[in-house]
Amino acid sequence: MPGVFSREVHVGRLRRVAAEAAAARLTGLLVTPGPDLTWLCGHRPGGAPDRLTLLVLTPEAEPRLLLPARDLADVAAGPVAGAVRLTAWADGQDPYAAAAGLLLPHGHYGISDATWSVHLLGLEEALPLTTYRPLSTALPLFRAVKDEEEKARLAAAAAAADAAYEAVLAVRFSGRRESELAADLAGLLRAHGHDRVDRARVAAGAHGADPDHRPGEHRIEPGDTVVLDLGGRRDGYASALTRTVHVGPPPDRLRRLHEIVRTAREAALAALLPGAPCAEPDRAARAVLADAGHGGDALPATGHGLGLTPYEPPYLAPGGTRLLAPGMCVQVAAGVLLPGRLGVRLGDTVVCTAAGVRRLGGADPALGVVT
Amino acid sequence: MPGVFSREVHVGRLRRVAAEAAAARLTGLLVTPGPDLTWLCGHRPGGAPDRLTLLVLTPEAEPRLLLPARDLADVAAGPVAGAVRLTAWADGQDPYAAAAGLLLPHGHYGISDATWSVHLLGLEEALPLTTYRPLSTALPLFRAVKDEEEKARLAAAAAAADAAYEAVLAVRFSGRRESELAADLAGLLRAHGHDRVDRARVAAGAHGADPDHRPGEHRIEPGDTVVLDLGGRRDGYASALTRTVHVGPPPDRLRRLHEIVRTAREAALAALLPGAPCAEPDRAARAVLADAGHGGDALPATGHGLGLTPYEPPYLAPGGTRLLAPGMCVQVAAGVLLPGRLGVRLGDTVVCTAAGVRRLGGADPALGVVT
Repeated sequence: MPGVFSREVHVGRLRRVAAEAAAARLTGLLVTPGPDLTWLCGHRPGGAPDRLTLLVLTPEAEPRLLLPARDLADVAAGPVAGAVRLTAWADGQDPYAAAAGLLLPHGHYGISDATWSVHLLGLEEALPLTTYRPLSTALPLFRAVKDEEEKARLAAAAAAADAAYEAVLAVRFSGRRESELAADLAGLLRAHGHDRVDRARVAAGAHGADPDHRPGEHRIEPGDTVVLDLGGRRDGYASALTRTVHVGPPPDRLRRLHEIVRTAREAALAALLPGAPCAEPDRAARAVLADAGHGGDALPATGHGLGLTPYEPPYLAPGGTRLLAPGMCVQVAAGVLLPGRLGVRLGDTVVCTAAGVRRLGGADPALGVVT
Repeated sequence: MPGVFSREVHVGRLRRVAAEAAAARLTGLLVTPGPDLTWLCGHRPGGAPDRLTLLVLTPEAEPRLLLPARDLADVAAGPVAGAVRLTAWADGQDPYAAAAGLLLPHGHYGISDATWSVHLLGLEEALPLTTYRPLSTALPLFRAVKDEEEKARLAAAAAAADAAYEAVLAVRFSGRRESELAADLAGLLRAHGHDRVDRARVAAGAHGADPDHRPGEHRIEPGDTVVLDLGGRRDGYASALTRTVHVGPPPDRLRRLHEIVRTAREAALAALLPGAPCAEPDRAARAVLADAGHGGDALPATGHGLGLTPYEPPYLAPGGTRLLAPGMCVQVAAGVLLPGRLGVRLGDTVVCTAAGVRRLGGADPALGVVT
């Protein structure tokens, strides 16, 4: 299953995060199904999220997993079998009473942001004196530093996105609809090894100035600048690549604008250093754009982490005070948005290392030319 | 967009549900993105659920919708424009402070089960004296009674599932893998008008006794009994159809077993009467199976509601005390599971009416024969 690692890796993560919870002055962590649970336990229940599955992780005790009885066999066949104590609840039983038995009545727990409120209300009723804090504020970066195998999977996903981008350069753009190109791009992402497509966005002309543009019926014409924003998952890990192409020979004015964006991108990459605050690459990219007279046209942010999900901490945005660390993998994005006219954007997956930034993909950042 | 109705329909729903909230002694309802919000407002935000969108519905005031500023244009172009007061929050603002301004500090609100805990914790911090109850316990059936247009959409989805089932009867089963048949079935669901496939399950031989079986590499052989469980969405509304087929001429023993299941199904359908408790159709089906010596082999439940989702209240299960009402649409399921041997199952979408049950699909319930 995508996102599953060896028993040793999962057990190491469970231990490390339990220690981080203690350092953050939490009694422990409560993790429900989603990327955090997959990362910790390699468990991704198939059932509906209205059935409580809850990992209880504390520094003192072995990890405990409360789960519907029907999922017992799955976990027993998974990587944390034997390393996590299992408590099953059957239909007709009260899962919150069962959960209460695993928690301290006066505890203070970090809880997954995405845990359904029906579960939190159930816990609050079962244990009125226990308090909770969203995991994203308690331990914002616990999956942000990637290990070697995670970096290898991110690099494989990035290579698959590179290959899809290179292949789409040979596809005819002129006279076709954005939605047709988007379908081609999605097919190429799959053909080059993605199990899932998250984004296959094609934004021609003025649409390129809207980062949220959904490919539509608009026909692409010679002379259009087109932003391609692509990403998916391969073996559970996300890819993210943004490139700008021009239909036919690019005019000098576009070449110059693209060069400015490329310089901003390089400034952001050079500023992605261990110990720097997350706002620093964003500040560096903005400074280049401002110097070139495009201070007001920058993207709202200069990137974000990716891993089991395509969008996760750290966020390279204005005001970001958290510190970059070796092993953090992020998409670094630079661009200018000229509403009513066009957009020029570049985005790449990179890893922060002690020796500076290292790209995980290799797609040419130059302005692409298509027919 | 699927799930969008006229302004008049949405405004009528908002009014009716606000009144139901008052009758349930709630200050009001807090609804976050998901089927309930789609049903009430025809709004389905594209952004991540970590950005708070919250409908505040009270009997006294007009409905209010707190939402990220980027979604304002979508709602302004949607069916409830002008009928719901909009409050936008921008990046960098505290959405919980904004939400607090819309709530009573001592209020008692029903809140969507699936609301992320990070939001509930944010509300609890902003308004320490406000209390909450899961919407599924406060107003369990507020989407259960379908109006005429919803019934028409469910009937269209059921007809699409019927057509996919009829088409799969002509497909070769013998010698092919369950997973191949499942892919055929998914393709047929789409070809016959589904926008989305939720279930295309193929369970041959002993796998038929596991209602959660995922189609795998197992090759189907002559003499296998195969359970087909299919469903998807068409125009936002769900289909659900379960049929049992036999590869080659069925033996008499299977014919007799299938006849028992069919009789149980008819008993459940006959018991689906307005005013009856939800457990009654389940009891009726179980009685038929017990009389035939299969009391211990029955499915865990005899069906559930469907609408914007494929699985929602009411639940036709043992102990169900809620009362059936005209307009409730449910899948009625009957079956026997013989572990290690086979399963025989039938499932149909029907509507409860004052004059008794009416089927929304028309697929032949007879034992199917395939090659």
